[in-house]
Amino acid sequence: MSDRLARQMAFLVEADKLKSILRRTPLSDGSRAENSAEHSWHLALAALALHEYAPAGVDVRRVLELVTVHDLVEIDAGDTFAYDAVAAEGKLDRERAAADRIFGLLPIDLRDRFRAAWDEFEAQETVDSRFANALDRLQALLQNMSSGGGSWTEHQVKRTQVLKRMEPVRTALPEVWPFVVEIIDRFSASGQIAIG
Amino acid sequence: MSDRLARQMAFLVEADKLKSILRRTPLSDGSRAENSAEHSWHLALAALALHEYAPAGVDVRRVLELVTVHDLVEIDAGDTFAYDAVAAEGKLDRERAAADRIFGLLPIDLRDRFRAAWDEFEAQETVDSRFANALDRLQALLQNMSSGGGSWTEHQVKRTQVLKRMEPVRTALPEVWPFVVEIIDRFSASGQIAIG
Repeated sequence: MSDRLARQMAFLVEADKLKSILRRTPLSDGSRAENSAEHSWHLALAALALHEYAPAGVDVRRVLELVTVHDLVEIDAGDTFAYDAVAAEGKLDRERAAADRIFGLLPIDLRDRFRAAWDEFEAQETVDSRFANALDRLQALLQNMSSGGGSWTEHQVKRTQVLKRMEPVRTALPEVWPFVVEIIDRFSASGQIAIG
Repeated sequence: MSDRLARQMAFLVEADKLKSILRRTPLSDGSRAENSAEHSWHLALAALALHEYAPAGVDVRRVLELVTVHDLVEIDAGDTFAYDAVAAEGKLDRERAAADRIFGLLPIDLRDRFRAAWDEFEAQETVDSRFANALDRLQALLQNMSSGGGSWTEHQVKRTQVLKRMEPVRTALPEVWPFVVEIIDRFSASGQIAIG
């Protein structure tokens, strides 16, 4: 086996660990926490199902690449809960070190390609990454909605926090935004999203 | 909310159930069975990491679409163990009925697009689907390899069965085939793949 192929295989085996990184969002039936690998798959499916609402000029192939790669750094850095300001401290440094190690398992050309995809997702500057980030937020909303409140309710997240967190949906998927507001309103009215 | 958007959201919520469909292959650390959603994500990652070995003319965007969609029918039909000839009986009928229902949740144009992707994956006639199927087989080999035998050992699968199952790798990814044979030889020598 060539050294190149050995590196590609070692990377794919290492990537398996993303299936053991748990998020705060539950499965729709509330039976367990969602992991970051199956979450990433759900984003790819959402990209395919919702691309008609994406910003003009979106390249779905690139979006699929971004969402497939976007959480790999969590293998080392863990999933940082979106509504935890303390945990957010140092998140970028942790994730950059993780990106160096994990993408560094690959041959150099692929390392650079995967790293560029992760950097692009994080920067939220291109239309592809804005669409990908909007899907990331929207999918978490669907999980919390379908499980009866999910991480919003468990962690007493406030309405203003949820609205702020969903902002990428408002800007990148304006046609979907009324749906998001409707869900937030409904869960606020029932107390499953906290006042404030 | 438009009826169209409502159907898209209902489909995405239904798709969440794929995270609860368990395969016979374990995670690399052997801690639990892999589910079909995280498996699908792993195939997308493999498509990105290994596309240089794919047949000429492969469209990676299409491959990502095929692997993202390919197991959704298991929400109704369950995962059929690759080495179980009895369970394979009626698999196609079960999966077609599942495809009718699950893709039927979508608006008609998307229903037809997703169904076409699933049909294409299953038929293994295009280069994209041949690459996607090869990845599906190769990823299962990686899971069994890294977990110390996995479903091969647990179900006493024979060497000739594994070789037959891996055939799509030989034909679609000939440069990767020696790696596959090396693994099969090693696990046969240790008794983790059965004689025969």
